[in-house]
Amino acid sequence: MSLLVQKYGGTSVGTVERIQAVAKRVAAERARGHDMVVVSAMSGETNRLLALARAVHPNAPPREVDVLLATGEQVTIALLSMALEELGCPARSYTGAQVHIRTDSVHGRARITAIDDGRVRQDLSSGRVVVIAGFQGVDEGGNITTLGRGGSDTTAVAMAAALRADECQIYTDVDGVYTTDPRVCPQARRLERITVEEMLELASLGAKVLQIRSVEFAGKYRVPLRVLSSFDDGPGTLITYEEPKMEQALISGIAFSRDEAKLTIKGVPDEPGVAYRIVGDVASANINVDMIIQNVGADKTTDFTFTVPRADYRQAREILEKTADALKAREVQGDERIAKISVVGVGMRSHAGIASTMFRVLGEEGINIQMISTSEIKISVIIEEKYLELAVRALHSAFGLDAEAAAAVPLA
Amino acid sequence: MSLLVQKYGGTSVGTVERIQAVAKRVAAERARGHDMVVVSAMSGETNRLLALARAVHPNAPPREVDVLLATGEQVTIALLSMALEELGCPARSYTGAQVHIRTDSVHGRARITAIDDGRVRQDLSSGRVVVIAGFQGVDEGGNITTLGRGGSDTTAVAMAAALRADECQIYTDVDGVYTTDPRVCPQARRLERITVEEMLELASLGAKVLQIRSVEFAGKYRVPLRVLSSFDDGPGTLITYEEPKMEQALISGIAFSRDEAKLTIKGVPDEPGVAYRIVGDVASANINVDMIIQNVGADKTTDFTFTVPRADYRQAREILEKTADALKAREVQGDERIAKISVVGVGMRSHAGIASTMFRVLGEEGINIQMISTSEIKISVIIEEKYLELAVRALHSAFGLDAEAAAAVPLA
Repeated sequence: MSLLVQKYGGTSVGTVERIQAVAKRVAAERARGHDMVVVSAMSGETNRLLALARAVHPNAPPREVDVLLATGEQVTIALLSMALEELGCPARSYTGAQVHIRTDSVHGRARITAIDDGRVRQDLSSGRVVVIAGFQGVDEGGNITTLGRGGSDTTAVAMAAALRADECQIYTDVDGVYTTDPRVCPQARRLERITVEEMLELASLGAKVLQIRSVEFAGKYRVPLRVLSSFDDGPGTLITYEEPKMEQALISGIAFSRDEAKLTIKGVPDEPGVAYRIVGDVASANINVDMIIQNVGADKTTDFTFTVPRADYRQAREILEKTADALKAREVQGDERIAKISVVGVGMRSHAGIASTMFRVLGEEGINIQMISTSEIKISVIIEEKYLELAVRALHSAFGLDAEAAAAVPLA
Repeated sequence: MSLLVQKYGGTSVGTVERIQAVAKRVAAERARGHDMVVVSAMSGETNRLLALARAVHPNAPPREVDVLLATGEQVTIALLSMALEELGCPARSYTGAQVHIRTDSVHGRARITAIDDGRVRQDLSSGRVVVIAGFQGVDEGGNITTLGRGGSDTTAVAMAAALRADECQIYTDVDGVYTTDPRVCPQARRLERITVEEMLELASLGAKVLQIRSVEFAGKYRVPLRVLSSFDDGPGTLITYEEPKMEQALISGIAFSRDEAKLTIKGVPDEPGVAYRIVGDVASANINVDMIIQNVGADKTTDFTFTVPRADYRQAREILEKTADALKAREVQGDERIAKISVVGVGMRSHAGIASTMFRVLGEEGINIQMISTSEIKISVIIEEKYLELAVRALHSAFGLDAEAAAAVPLA
């Protein structure tokens, strides 16, 4: 007898028929002897509700938006519980407030601070399936809060942590985590396992399978987390906390993003405080600065390059022009047609040579590397956007990730 | 500075535009210096939600139906609070659970047992308008409950009682309580005031302005209750606890119902326990028996007549046929084409002659009275259905209720 927390959301609870299909799946697991907690997300009502709010108030108070949005999951949990009961599977629904999913008071993107598991445990021991509204909680003052995009994943992981569940299963519209995007690289392969750290790097780099906060949460509380498909059977991908075994690939995946733009300010006096001045001005406008490179020149000046989200490029460039005037810099250059590629793998920790393999492979394809940034388990490079697909496929093959590849990892 | 509790429901919060109109009305009262608590009902979502429930479970668990239905008011309170904020009027919404509208656990028709007014008072003293979801509460176990049809009226009255509000105003789609139904009697007149007892008699007799439970509640806690229109201005009707002044009419209104059918069992042995046997068999089938008359005959047998809701007539008749066989009664007769007319007024307590006036007026119109039943402030008669409108108009005029009537009340 084990305890599973399953999370279903979005399209998988979007119609009465799909809710019934989810109920069947849950009832089947229950019949196999598992204690079941189901976390349910909104069924596509968000847009309708937000349109109502906008019609009443162009900039509605976040507290009331949360009261409004929380009704979406409440409808889903009631219907899912009914569908389970109809299958002869005793079930009970709870809103976030009812199971005391306590959060801070930041409406619209609240963070879970505590969960009271008493009520859920009581139902489980009476043989009931417990159905919990994801995405929502309640603050200390009893106000309804919501957790922001993907918050239901976090609810599921937090619930699993509180209950010490044997596994937290996140049902999505993909069947697992892939070595890279199959649309770009047909050889992409579903990973059986991936570490939390790798998942975090992949998620932050654009692999949008799980909300990053839920993965952090899973890592912190060591919740075994599995991503799998609501529509197909299959084992999905297990997110683990162990180091990979010797025979595992050094690289788990290749992430990429087109959502970047590059700005360079040239001929800045090479003085203390200049870097802060440049980045600070941009950051003050709430623009996220990602990679930063500084090259010291021969003439007591320096060149300073950094990347920003492409959507913020125009604004960042305007700010930088002003900074350049103030610093009497030589010029400002910009480039929106870049892409970021990252290879991710905990194997890097113990194996040298990953970076040089990456640079060699890109060089062999005639792709120039514009910027480089590294972390303990990741190497990211900026290249010209038009080479993105070519680079992803070349690296995917070179690091032995291809579905059919039997090759050993080539260490430069 | 006084405290008003206003309740808006159904059609008056059915669209974004109507919610904005309600917000304007509330904000205007606030600007006049009144502390405001607004109780809001569902905006016509009930049917959509119930259809979803039925699609999932033909006979859904009442607990989950309540979870589902409670979302309707939650949407309304969020939107109404937003609309108030948009008008520059600080507002805050609360679900039934959030303001601890404690009920028993009878899902679908729960009764309010307690209200914690602390939170509301705090908001009021901070100058906020408090917007509360009607129709819903929470039981001791934290489960969401709903109060049944018209439950929002009860929420409003209970809230007004808990807060000792100066007035509880129920906004409806009629502009007050009338002396009788204007569709039947064009001379019908809006009453300025009516006592709780009269209102109870009128409500139970078919004047469906207010949920009867909310009137009982108002009577018990002496909440000044006013019925008025959400669409027109006007003072509405105040429901009071005082005896009418001398110059007021003895009769407040004339209620009627077509929703009745009559059954007679003839030639029953006149023995102790027979009445119980007859009524008991029908009542056991959950059929509501209203008026009961027993005539003792000369031959040691008795005739027994009673009324039931017309919808239950067939079933009641079948039961009665069986009872008649068992009791060896002579025959069973029935009549579905009857109507009940009642004159209601606390003035009856101190004035004799109301009944005889009623009988004389009906007699003058050639209307035969089939059954009579009286209470302290009401006289009801059963007549042939086709005479209903004629009888209502004749009595309305005779008791001085006509809009233009200057006449004194004719005491037979």
